[in-house]
Amino acid sequence: MTETAERVLYSYWRSSASYRVRIALNLKRLNHTIHSVNLLKNEQNSQWYRDINPQGLIPTLIEVIPDPITGRPLIISQSLAIIDYLEEAYPRAILLPDTCFLASRAHVRQMAQIIACDVHPLQNPRSLQEMRMRGYSLDADAWCCRWIAEGFATYEGMTRFYGDGFSFGDKPTLADCCLIPQVYNAKRFGCDLEPYPNIRRIYENCMQMEAFQKAAPENQPDAPK
Amino acid sequence: MTETAERVLYSYWRSSASYRVRIALNLKRLNHTIHSVNLLKNEQNSQWYRDINPQGLIPTLIEVIPDPITGRPLIISQSLAIIDYLEEAYPRAILLPDTCFLASRAHVRQMAQIIACDVHPLQNPRSLQEMRMRGYSLDADAWCCRWIAEGFATYEGMTRFYGDGFSFGDKPTLADCCLIPQVYNAKRFGCDLEPYPNIRRIYENCMQMEAFQKAAPENQPDAPK
Repeated sequence: MTETAERVLYSYWRSSASYRVRIALNLKRLNHTIHSVNLLKNEQNSQWYRDINPQGLIPTLIEVIPDPITGRPLIISQSLAIIDYLEEAYPRAILLPDTCFLASRAHVRQMAQIIACDVHPLQNPRSLQEMRMRGYSLDADAWCCRWIAEGFATYEGMTRFYGDGFSFGDKPTLADCCLIPQVYNAKRFGCDLEPYPNIRRIYENCMQMEAFQKAAPENQPDAPK
Repeated sequence: MTETAERVLYSYWRSSASYRVRIALNLKRLNHTIHSVNLLKNEQNSQWYRDINPQGLIPTLIEVIPDPITGRPLIISQSLAIIDYLEEAYPRAILLPDTCFLASRAHVRQMAQIIACDVHPLQNPRSLQEMRMRGYSLDADAWCCRWIAEGFATYEGMTRFYGDGFSFGDKPTLADCCLIPQVYNAKRFGCDLEPYPNIRRIYENCMQMEAFQKAAPENQPDAPK
Protein backbone atom coordinates (compact mmCIF):
# COMPACT_ATOMS: atom_id res chain seq x y z
CA MET A 1 0.00 0.00 0.00
CA THR A 2 2.74 2.51 0.80
CA GLU A 3 5.15 1.93 -2.08
CA THR A 4 2.48 2.19 -4.74
CA ALA A 5 0.59 5.02 -3.03
CA GLU A 6 -0.38 7.80 -5.39
CA ARG A 7 -2.04 9.95 -2.77
CA VAL A 8 -1.88 10.77 0.90
CA LEU A 9 -4.89 11.29 3.14
CA TYR A 10 -4.35 13.36 6.26
CA SER A 11 -6.73 11.73 8.66
CA TYR A 12 -7.48 11.06 12.31
CA TRP A 13 -8.88 7.67 13.27
CA ARG A 14 -11.95 9.03 15.03
CA SER A 15 -12.69 11.97 12.69
CA SER A 16 -15.92 11.23 10.91
CA ALA A 17 -15.11 13.57 8.01
CA SER A 18 -11.88 11.59 7.48
CA TYR A 19 -13.83 8.33 7.79
CA ARG A 20 -16.12 9.42 4.90
CA VAL A 21 -13.15 9.87 2.58
CA ARG A 22 -11.51 6.62 3.71
CA ILE A 23 -14.68 4.76 2.69
CA ALA A 24 -14.73 6.45 -0.74
CA LEU A 25 -11.04 5.70 -1.37
CA ASN A 26 -11.58 2.06 -0.45
CA LEU A 27 -14.76 1.66 -2.50
CA LYS A 28 -12.89 3.00 -5.51
CA ARG A 29 -9.83 0.88 -4.69
CA LEU A 30 -7.52 3.87 -4.89
CA ASN A 31 -4.02 3.43 -3.50
CA HIS A 32 -3.35 5.77 -0.63
CA THR A 33 -1.26 6.29 2.43
CA ILE A 34 -2.87 7.46 5.66
CA HIS A 35 -0.94 10.21 7.46
CA SER A 36 -2.22 10.71 10.97
CA VAL A 37 -3.03 14.18 12.31
CA ASN A 38 -3.52 13.73 16.04
CA LEU A 39 -6.38 15.98 17.11
CA LEU A 40 -5.76 15.24 20.80
CA LYS A 41 -2.23 16.64 20.41
CA ASN A 42 -3.62 19.61 18.44
CA GLU A 43 -1.52 18.62 15.43
CA GLN A 44 -4.15 20.12 13.12
CA ASN A 45 -2.89 23.52 14.26
CA SER A 46 0.82 22.72 13.95
CA GLN A 47 2.80 24.67 11.40
CA TRP A 48 3.54 21.65 9.23
CA TYR A 49 -0.16 20.86 8.88
CA ARG A 50 -1.27 24.48 8.49
CA ASP A 51 1.18 24.70 5.58
CA ILE A 52 -0.85 21.96 3.90
CA ASN A 53 -4.29 23.08 5.03
CA PRO A 54 -4.42 26.64 6.41
CA GLN A 55 -7.88 25.97 7.84
CA GLY A 56 -6.42 23.43 10.23
CA LEU A 57 -9.21 20.93 9.73
CA ILE A 58 -9.05 17.35 8.56
CA PRO A 59 -9.20 15.56 6.20
CA THR A 60 -6.91 16.80 3.45
CA LEU A 61 -6.06 14.80 0.34
CA ILE A 62 -2.83 15.26 -1.57
CA GLU A 63 -2.73 13.82 -5.07
CA VAL A 64 0.77 13.27 -6.37
CA ILE A 65 -0.27 14.29 -9.91
CA PRO A 66 0.45 18.00 -10.31
CA ASP A 67 -2.36 20.55 -10.31
CA PRO A 68 -2.58 21.90 -13.91
CA ILE A 69 -2.92 25.49 -12.67
CA THR A 70 -0.29 25.61 -9.96
CA GLY A 71 2.09 22.89 -11.16
CA ARG A 72 2.16 21.63 -7.58
CA PRO A 73 0.65 18.47 -6.16
CA LEU A 74 -3.10 18.80 -5.89
CA ILE A 75 -4.26 19.56 -2.36
CA ILE A 76 -7.97 19.36 -1.53
CA SER A 77 -9.73 19.65 1.79
CA GLN A 78 -13.40 19.42 2.79
CA SER A 79 -14.56 15.82 2.78
CA LEU A 80 -17.42 16.23 0.27
CA ALA A 81 -15.23 18.22 -2.13
CA ILE A 82 -12.63 15.44 -1.93
CA ILE A 83 -15.22 12.74 -2.64
CA ASP A 84 -16.71 14.76 -5.53
CA TYR A 85 -13.20 15.08 -6.95
CA LEU A 86 -12.55 11.34 -6.61
CA GLU A 87 -15.91 10.63 -8.24
CA GLU A 88 -15.08 12.82 -11.23
CA ALA A 89 -11.44 11.75 -11.55
CA TYR A 90 -12.01 8.01 -11.03
CA PRO A 91 -15.41 7.05 -12.42
CA ARG A 92 -15.32 3.46 -11.15
CA ALA A 93 -17.39 2.08 -8.29
CA ILE A 94 -19.45 5.21 -8.81
CA LEU A 95 -20.85 6.86 -5.70
CA LEU A 96 -23.58 8.84 -7.45
CA PRO A 97 -26.27 7.55 -9.84
CA ASP A 98 -25.47 7.94 -13.52
CA THR A 99 -25.74 11.44 -15.01
CA CYS A 100 -28.88 10.30 -16.87
CA PHE A 101 -30.63 10.34 -13.51
CA LEU A 102 -30.28 13.89 -12.29
CA ALA A 103 -33.09 13.62 -9.77
CA SER A 104 -31.51 10.55 -8.19
CA ARG A 105 -28.14 12.26 -8.02
CA ALA A 106 -29.81 15.20 -6.28
CA HIS A 107 -31.46 12.94 -3.73
CA VAL A 108 -28.21 11.13 -2.89
CA ARG A 109 -26.50 14.49 -2.40
CA GLN A 110 -29.40 15.70 -0.30
CA MET A 111 -29.00 12.71 2.01
CA ALA A 112 -25.24 13.27 2.27
CA GLN A 113 -25.78 16.92 3.11
CA ILE A 114 -28.36 16.20 5.80
CA ILE A 115 -25.44 14.51 7.60
CA ALA A 116 -22.60 16.80 6.53
CA CYS A 117 -24.34 20.19 6.82
CA ASP A 118 -27.09 19.71 9.41
CA VAL A 119 -25.93 17.02 11.83
CA HIS A 120 -22.16 16.79 11.96
CA PRO A 121 -21.15 20.49 12.27
CA LEU A 122 -23.04 20.75 15.56
CA GLN A 123 -21.13 17.91 17.16
CA ASN A 124 -17.59 18.16 15.89
CA PRO A 125 -14.86 18.62 18.51
CA ARG A 126 -14.10 22.27 17.78
CA SER A 127 -17.70 23.43 18.28
CA LEU A 128 -18.12 21.37 21.47
CA GLN A 129 -14.79 22.68 22.77
CA GLU A 130 -15.80 26.28 22.07
CA MET A 131 -19.08 25.79 23.94
CA ARG A 132 -17.19 24.42 26.95
CA MET A 133 -14.69 27.30 26.81
CA ARG A 134 -17.61 29.73 26.99
CA GLY A 135 -18.74 28.05 30.17
CA TYR A 136 -21.91 26.48 28.83
CA SER A 137 -22.94 23.56 31.02
CA LEU A 138 -22.87 21.27 28.05
CA ASP A 139 -24.22 17.75 28.20
CA ALA A 140 -22.32 16.92 25.04
CA ASP A 141 -23.87 13.52 24.43
CA ALA A 142 -27.42 14.83 24.77
CA TRP A 143 -26.61 17.84 22.59
CA CYS A 144 -25.17 15.60 19.87
CA CYS A 145 -28.00 13.04 20.06
CA ARG A 146 -30.56 15.84 19.72
CA TRP A 147 -29.15 16.82 16.30
CA ILE A 148 -28.58 13.25 15.24
CA ALA A 149 -32.20 12.37 16.06
CA GLU A 150 -33.48 15.25 13.96
CA GLY A 151 -31.30 14.40 10.97
CA PHE A 152 -31.77 10.64 11.20
CA ALA A 153 -35.58 11.00 11.30
CA THR A 154 -35.51 12.69 7.89
CA TYR A 155 -32.84 10.34 6.59
CA GLU A 156 -34.78 7.26 7.68
CA GLY A 157 -37.83 8.58 5.83
CA MET A 158 -35.81 9.00 2.64
CA THR A 159 -34.42 5.47 2.86
CA ARG A 160 -38.00 4.13 3.00
CA PHE A 161 -38.56 5.78 -0.33
CA TYR A 162 -35.23 5.32 -2.07
CA GLY A 163 -33.24 2.66 -0.22
CA ASP A 164 -32.92 -1.02 -0.96
CA GLY A 165 -30.38 -2.36 1.52
CA PHE A 166 -28.32 0.82 1.23
CA SER A 167 -29.27 4.47 1.63
CA PHE A 168 -30.15 4.85 -2.03
CA GLY A 169 -30.71 1.69 -4.06
CA ASP A 170 -28.82 -1.55 -3.59
CA LYS A 171 -25.22 -0.32 -3.71
CA PRO A 172 -23.19 2.05 -1.55
CA THR A 173 -23.27 5.71 -2.56
CA LEU A 174 -21.97 9.04 -1.32
CA ALA A 175 -24.88 9.00 1.14
CA ASP A 176 -23.53 5.85 2.82
CA CYS A 177 -20.04 7.37 2.96
CA CYS A 178 -21.58 10.07 5.18
CA LEU A 179 -24.13 7.98 7.06
CA ILE A 180 -21.86 5.23 8.38
CA PRO A 181 -19.41 7.54 10.23
CA GLN A 182 -22.41 9.35 11.69
CA VAL A 183 -23.88 6.08 12.97
CA TYR A 184 -20.49 5.30 14.52
CA ASN A 185 -20.67 8.65 16.34
CA ALA A 186 -24.26 8.07 17.38
CA LYS A 187 -23.28 4.76 18.99
CA ARG A 188 -20.34 6.43 20.70
CA PHE A 189 -22.59 9.17 22.14
CA GLY A 190 -25.13 6.56 23.27
CA CYS A 191 -27.95 7.86 21.07
CA ASP A 192 -31.10 5.78 20.72
CA LEU A 193 -31.11 4.18 17.27
CA GLU A 194 -34.26 2.15 17.88
CA PRO A 195 -36.47 4.51 15.79
CA TYR A 196 -34.31 4.02 12.68
CA PRO A 197 -34.55 0.37 11.55
CA ASN A 198 -33.48 1.15 7.99
CA ILE A 199 -30.43 3.07 9.12
CA ARG A 200 -29.46 0.18 11.40
CA ARG A 201 -29.87 -2.29 8.56
CA ILE A 202 -27.84 -0.12 6.16
CA TYR A 203 -25.10 0.11 8.79
CA GLU A 204 -25.01 -3.67 9.11
CA ASN A 205 -24.93 -4.16 5.35
CA CYS A 206 -22.13 -1.66 4.87
CA MET A 207 -20.07 -3.10 7.69
CA GLN A 208 -20.10 -6.45 5.90
CA MET A 209 -18.06 -4.87 3.12
CA GLU A 210 -14.28 -4.74 3.21
CA ALA A 211 -14.19 -1.11 2.04
CA PHE A 212 -16.16 -0.01 5.09
CA GLN A 213 -14.35 -2.33 7.50
CA LYS A 214 -10.92 -1.06 6.44
CA ALA A 215 -12.11 2.53 6.85
CA ALA A 216 -13.47 2.01 10.37
CA PRO A 217 -11.84 4.01 13.17
CA GLU A 218 -10.64 0.97 15.11
CA ASN A 219 -8.77 -0.32 12.04
CA GLN A 220 -6.76 2.84 11.48
CA PRO A 221 -2.99 2.92 11.97
CA ASP A 222 -3.34 5.72 14.54
CA ALA A 223 -6.11 4.05 16.57
CA PRO A 224 -5.15 3.13 20.15
CA LYS A 225 -4.13 -0.52 20.33
CA MET B 1 -42.34 35.50 -13.79
CA THR B 2 -45.34 33.71 -12.30
CA GLU B 3 -47.17 32.60 -15.44
CA THR B 4 -44.12 31.09 -17.06
CA ALA B 5 -42.66 29.70 -13.85
CA GLU B 6 -41.44 26.13 -14.22
CA ARG B 7 -40.32 25.76 -10.62
CA VAL B 8 -41.11 26.97 -7.14
CA LEU B 9 -38.53 27.83 -4.52
CA TYR B 10 -39.68 27.67 -0.92
CA SER B 11 -37.64 30.43 0.62
CA TYR B 12 -37.46 32.93 3.45
CA TRP B 13 -36.09 36.39 2.71
CA ARG B 14 -33.40 36.28 5.39
CA SER B 15 -32.42 32.60 5.09
CA SER B 16 -28.92 32.44 3.73
CA ALA B 17 -29.35 28.90 2.39
CA SER B 18 -32.37 30.16 0.40
CA TYR B 19 -30.34 33.18 -0.73
CA ARG B 20 -27.68 30.85 -2.21
CA VAL B 21 -30.25 29.11 -4.40
CA ARG B 22 -31.90 32.39 -5.41
CA ILE B 23 -28.53 33.60 -6.73
CA ALA B 24 -27.99 30.38 -8.70
CA LEU B 25 -31.48 30.51 -10.22
CA ASN B 26 -30.94 34.12 -11.27
CA LEU B 27 -27.45 33.55 -12.68
CA LYS B 28 -28.87 30.73 -14.80
CA ARG B 29 -31.93 32.84 -15.73
CA LEU B 30 -34.30 30.08 -14.70
CA ASN B 31 -37.95 31.02 -14.33
CA HIS B 32 -39.20 30.50 -10.84
CA THR B 33 -41.77 31.56 -8.31
CA ILE B 34 -40.76 32.32 -4.74
CA HIS B 35 -43.07 30.84 -2.12
CA SER B 36 -42.39 32.29 1.29
CA VAL B 37 -41.99 30.08 4.36
CA ASN B 38 -42.09 32.43 7.33
CA LEU B 39 -39.55 31.18 9.87
CA LEU B 40 -40.72 33.72 12.46
CA LYS B 41 -44.19 32.18 12.30
CA ASN B 42 -42.65 28.67 12.43
CA GLU B 43 -44.19 27.86 9.04
CA GLN B 44 -41.30 25.51 8.32
CA ASN B 45 -42.88 23.14 10.85
CA SER B 46 -46.45 23.49 9.58
CA GLN B 47 -48.06 20.38 8.13
CA TRP B 48 -48.30 21.80 4.61
CA TYR B 49 -44.57 22.46 4.51
CA ARG B 50 -43.57 19.22 6.26
CA ASP B 51 -45.52 17.40 3.55
CA ILE B 52 -43.14 18.95 1.03
CA ASN B 53 -39.98 18.75 3.13
CA PRO B 54 -40.25 16.43 6.14
CA GLN B 55 -37.03 17.91 7.56
CA GLY B 56 -38.74 21.27 8.01
CA LEU B 57 -35.78 23.27 6.73
CA ILE B 58 -35.60 25.68 3.85
CA PRO B 59 -34.98 25.99 0.97
CA THR B 60 -36.85 23.39 -1.07
CA LEU B 61 -37.10 23.44 -4.85
CA ILE B 62 -40.00 21.89 -6.72
CA GLU B 63 -39.45 21.30 -10.41
CA VAL B 64 -42.66 20.92 -12.35
CA ILE B 65 -41.12 18.25 -14.61
CA PRO B 66 -41.95 14.84 -13.11
CA ASP B 67 -39.29 12.81 -11.32
CA PRO B 68 -38.57 9.80 -13.59
CA ILE B 69 -38.58 7.41 -10.62
CA THR B 70 -41.61 8.59 -8.71
CA GLY B 71 -43.61 10.18 -11.55
CA ARG B 72 -44.25 13.11 -9.22
CA PRO B 73 -42.84 16.62 -9.43
CA LEU B 74 -39.18 16.64 -8.45
CA ILE B 75 -38.65 17.89 -4.90
CA ILE B 76 -35.12 18.67 -3.71
CA SER B 77 -33.93 20.24 -0.50
CA GLN B 78 -30.45 21.12 0.80
CA SER B 79 -29.15 24.23 -0.90
CA LEU B 80 -25.96 22.71 -2.33
CA ALA B 81 -27.81 19.66 -3.64
CA ILE B 82 -30.28 22.00 -5.35
CA ILE B 83 -27.49 24.04 -6.93
CA ASP B 84 -25.64 20.90 -8.06
CA TYR B 85 -28.88 19.72 -9.64
CA LEU B 86 -29.41 23.05 -11.43
CA GLU B 87 -25.80 22.95 -12.61
CA GLU B 88 -26.24 19.49 -14.10
CA ALA B 89 -29.72 20.08 -15.52
CA TYR B 90 -29.07 23.55 -16.97
CA PRO B 91 -25.46 23.82 -18.09
CA ARG B 92 -25.58 27.53 -18.89
CA ALA B 93 -23.94 30.28 -16.87
CA ILE B 94 -21.97 27.43 -15.34
CA LEU B 95 -21.18 27.70 -11.67
CA LEU B 96 -18.28 25.24 -11.65
CA PRO B 97 -15.19 25.23 -13.88
CA ASP B 98 -15.38 22.93 -16.90
CA THR B 99 -15.04 19.20 -16.29
CA CYS B 100 -11.57 19.34 -17.91
CA PHE B 101 -10.41 21.13 -14.78
CA LEU B 102 -11.12 18.72 -11.97
CA ALA B 103 -8.75 20.41 -9.55
CA SER B 104 -10.42 23.78 -10.09
CA ARG B 105 -13.85 22.26 -9.60
CA ALA B 106 -12.63 20.73 -6.34
CA HIS B 107 -11.32 24.07 -5.11
CA VAL B 108 -14.56 25.90 -5.88
CA ARG B 109 -16.48 23.20 -4.01
CA GLN B 110 -14.02 23.42 -1.14
CA MET B 111 -14.66 27.15 -0.82
CA ALA B 112 -18.43 26.63 -0.94
CA GLN B 113 -18.20 23.98 1.78
CA ILE B 114 -16.08 26.13 4.07
CA ILE B 115 -19.15 28.36 4.22
CA ALA B 116 -21.88 25.72 4.05
CA CYS B 117 -20.37 23.06 6.34
CA ASP B 118 -18.06 24.96 8.71
CA VAL B 119 -19.48 28.45 9.15
CA HIS B 120 -23.20 28.54 8.51
CA PRO B 121 -24.42 25.51 10.53
CA LEU B 122 -23.11 27.10 13.75
CA GLN B 123 -25.12 30.25 13.29
CA ASN B 124 -28.40 29.21 11.79
CA PRO B 125 -31.54 30.05 13.76
CA ARG B 126 -32.34 26.53 14.93
CA SER B 127 -28.94 25.98 16.55
CA LEU B 128 -28.96 29.42 18.24
CA GLN B 129 -32.51 28.82 19.44
CA GLU B 130 -31.56 25.44 20.89
CA MET B 131 -28.63 27.00 22.76
CA ARG B 132 -30.93 29.62 24.24
CA MET B 133 -33.49 26.99 25.23
CA ARG B 134 -30.74 25.17 27.10
CA GLY B 135 -30.09 28.31 29.10
CA TYR B 136 -26.66 29.12 27.67
CA SER B 137 -25.89 32.80 28.16
CA LEU B 138 -25.35 33.19 24.46
CA ASP B 139 -23.87 36.33 22.96
CA ALA B 140 -25.20 35.29 19.57
CA ASP B 141 -23.40 37.93 17.52
CA ALA B 142 -20.01 37.15 19.09
CA TRP B 143 -20.59 33.42 18.71
CA CYS B 144 -21.47 33.83 15.01
CA CYS B 145 -18.60 36.23 14.30
CA ARG B 146 -16.14 33.79 15.88
CA TRP B 147 -17.01 31.10 13.30
CA ILE B 148 -17.25 33.57 10.46
CA ALA B 149 -13.78 34.91 11.28
CA GLU B 150 -12.29 31.43 11.23
CA GLY B 151 -13.93 30.49 7.95
CA PHE B 152 -13.30 33.83 6.26
CA ALA B 153 -9.60 33.75 7.14
CA THR B 154 -9.18 30.54 5.16
CA TYR B 155 -11.49 31.72 2.40
CA GLU B 156 -9.61 35.02 2.02
CA GLY B 157 -6.37 33.06 1.66
CA MET B 158 -7.85 30.93 -1.12
CA THR B 159 -9.10 34.00 -3.01
CA ARG B 160 -5.54 35.38 -3.01
CA PHE B 161 -4.51 32.27 -4.84
CA TYR B 162 -7.48 31.60 -7.08
CA GLY B 163 -9.62 34.73 -7.24
CA ASP B 164 -9.67 37.47 -9.84
CA GLY B 165 -12.52 39.78 -8.88
CA PHE B 166 -14.65 36.82 -7.80
CA SER B 167 -13.94 33.98 -5.40
CA PHE B 168 -12.49 31.80 -8.12
CA GLY B 169 -11.46 33.43 -11.38
CA ASP B 170 -13.27 36.34 -12.98
CA LYS B 171 -16.85 35.05 -13.03
CA PRO B 172 -19.31 34.07 -10.31
CA THR B 173 -19.24 30.44 -9.23
CA LEU B 174 -20.87 28.20 -6.67
CA ALA B 175 -18.41 29.65 -4.17
CA ASP B 176 -19.85 33.16 -4.61
CA CYS B 177 -23.39 31.77 -4.28
CA CYS B 178 -22.35 30.69 -0.76
CA LEU B 179 -20.06 33.58 0.15
CA ILE B 180 -22.37 36.50 -0.54
CA PRO B 181 -25.19 35.39 1.80
CA GLN B 182 -22.56 34.75 4.46
CA VAL B 183 -21.17 38.28 4.07
CA TYR B 184 -24.72 39.58 4.41
CA ASN B 185 -25.00 37.69 7.70
CA ALA B 186 -21.60 38.90 8.86
CA LYS B 187 -22.68 42.51 8.30
CA ARG B 188 -25.92 41.85 10.12
CA PHE B 189 -24.07 40.38 13.12
CA GLY B 190 -21.63 43.32 13.13
CA CYS B 191 -18.55 41.17 12.44
CA ASP B 192 -15.29 42.91 11.58
CA LEU B 193 -14.65 42.46 7.84
CA GLU B 194 -11.55 44.65 7.81
CA PRO B 195 -9.14 41.67 7.65
CA TYR B 196 -10.74 40.38 4.44
CA PRO B 197 -10.16 42.89 1.63
CA ASN B 198 -10.67 40.32 -1.13
CA ILE B 199 -13.94 39.13 0.33
CA ARG B 200 -15.13 42.73 0.58
CA ARG B 201 -14.16 43.38 -3.04
CA ILE B 202 -15.87 40.19 -4.23
CA TYR B 203 -19.01 41.23 -2.37
CA GLU B 204 -18.99 44.61 -4.09
CA ASN B 205 -18.43 43.05 -7.50
CA CYS B 206 -21.23 40.55 -7.04
CA MET B 207 -23.65 43.15 -5.76
CA GLN B 208 -23.18 45.07 -9.02
CA MET B 209 -24.81 42.18 -10.85
CA GLU B 210 -28.56 41.95 -11.31
CA ALA B 211 -28.62 38.24 -10.41
CA PHE B 212 -27.23 38.98 -6.96
CA GLN B 213 -29.31 42.13 -6.45
CA LYS B 214 -32.55 40.34 -7.24
CA ALA B 215 -31.62 37.56 -4.81
CA ALA B 216 -30.82 39.90 -1.92
CA PRO B 217 -32.97 39.59 1.20
CA GLU B 218 -34.34 43.13 1.03
CA ASN B 219 -35.61 42.53 -2.50
CA GLN B 220 -37.66 39.47 -1.66
CA PRO B 221 -41.44 39.48 -1.84
CA ASP B 222 -41.65 38.46 1.85
CA ALA B 223 -39.18 41.07 3.15
CA PRO B 224 -40.67 43.67 5.53
CA LYS B 225 -41.56 46.79 3.60
